[in-house]
Amino acid sequence: MSMSRRNIRLVISYDGTDFCGWQIQASERTVQGVLEEALRRLLGRETRVIVAGRTDSGVHANGQVVNFSCESSIPTERFRHAVNSRLPRDVRVVSSDEVSPGFHARFSARLRTYKYYIRPAEFADPIGRRFELTIKRPLNLERLNAFAGHVVGTHDFTAFAAAGDQSDSKVRKIRTAVFYREGERLVFRIDGNAFLWKMVRSLVGSILEYDSEGRSPTYMAAVIAARNRKPAGTTAPAKGLFLHRVQYDE
Amino acid sequence: MSMSRRNIRLVISYDGTDFCGWQIQASERTVQGVLEEALRRLLGRETRVIVAGRTDSGVHANGQVVNFSCESSIPTERFRHAVNSRLPRDVRVVSSDEVSPGFHARFSARLRTYKYYIRPAEFADPIGRRFELTIKRPLNLERLNAFAGHVVGTHDFTAFAAAGDQSDSKVRKIRTAVFYREGERLVFRIDGNAFLWKMVRSLVGSILEYDSEGRSPTYMAAVIAARNRKPAGTTAPAKGLFLHRVQYDE
Repeated sequence: MSMSRRNIRLVISYDGTDFCGWQIQASERTVQGVLEEALRRLLGRETRVIVAGRTDSGVHANGQVVNFSCESSIPTERFRHAVNSRLPRDVRVVSSDEVSPGFHARFSARLRTYKYYIRPAEFADPIGRRFELTIKRPLNLERLNAFAGHVVGTHDFTAFAAAGDQSDSKVRKIRTAVFYREGERLVFRIDGNAFLWKMVRSLVGSILEYDSEGRSPTYMAAVIAARNRKPAGTTAPAKGLFLHRVQYDE
Repeated sequence: MSMSRRNIRLVISYDGTDFCGWQIQASERTVQGVLEEALRRLLGRETRVIVAGRTDSGVHANGQVVNFSCESSIPTERFRHAVNSRLPRDVRVVSSDEVSPGFHARFSARLRTYKYYIRPAEFADPIGRRFELTIKRPLNLERLNAFAGHVVGTHDFTAFAAAGDQSDSKVRKIRTAVFYREGERLVFRIDGNAFLWKMVRSLVGSILEYDSEGRSPTYMAAVIAARNRKPAGTTAPAKGLFLHRVQYDE
């Protein structure tokens, strides 16, 4: 067994409800915190992970990606089970593999996919309530997609960045932005190279708001072009949002 | 508005995870407890509800049915919203209507449908974990259905009744018992006039056990015919079970 430095990638899934987001904090329960604690117990030393997308408090993930460096001789395919047995039940490693030394979960990512789940219903369903936004009025899929269509392309998304966003450039390239039906729910799926802070929730909240106000879908294009946060709608709640997948060149 | 006695029916949905079952208990949180408390606050007096199926601790419902008698002049269609605004978020009234004085949620029920959700996966999914059983081996739908087929019909189900079942007769009439795929999960659906205590969970646990032991599907018929609890398998956990629907003659 080689004791040389290895770069391990994990795909992880979590229920964000009972976490104060991804990023480690001294006194709060975070996903990074419980994952690094599990790795510390498994590997016997402090291990810092690099993450593809730092999710906010209450946001979930099916396909979050992290990588970390280690010298352990644990066979690659065993990492999943070994880490899972040290994690709380609201986080699970879906898969594990060994990647090249240059792989970086955040900087190597080419495409990130988020999904936002909406239930059009009179009241929040007890079973789904942790994982979806309930909207009490009927929603027209075609009309929502007319708004979403203006999001696709390379734009300066200043209008949909949260006040604290630290990015130098607010330009992001969006490949897909579409609403579709999945059972009793609507899903908003968005694929892009990267996203500004709270951008997906701001887009969802704004589209729902513009739609309910009876605005024309071209208003979306005008708001993006204006690069001004003021006309953006309310940020949709965290509970409906999932980091669904992160893709890399390989 | 008439102040005569009215018989109100509610269809309710709940996440059973944080309840000690349906039936009211002095010191435990139960669905009946929170529902009767909401009705007491709404109607200003103690109100006892009659339920279609008393679910055990941890069992969920999409279509539980209750009825209660009241003198309130609240319009029938308003009960849903009025009760919901007084309920915790893990219980919701789905619909409300006024029924004839002779309607009894339990004794008038003609058909009860339960669903049991199974995820064939290496580990429990963080998102679905409260609402499904994870089975680590691959499952063959046709083989499971060969076992389930023997459950259909009118049989004495003594073999699948929990030790404490109080029923005089253990004979129940099962109309449907089938496994089918729904997304990444398998669902076991069973329709019958009524069920013995823990019977659905005992059937699911036994079928999974007989299948994993490589038994012939006809073993199921032999176990039913023997009317002996001993060969029955482990009772499947509560979290996968939903009381899905109750039907009445109308």
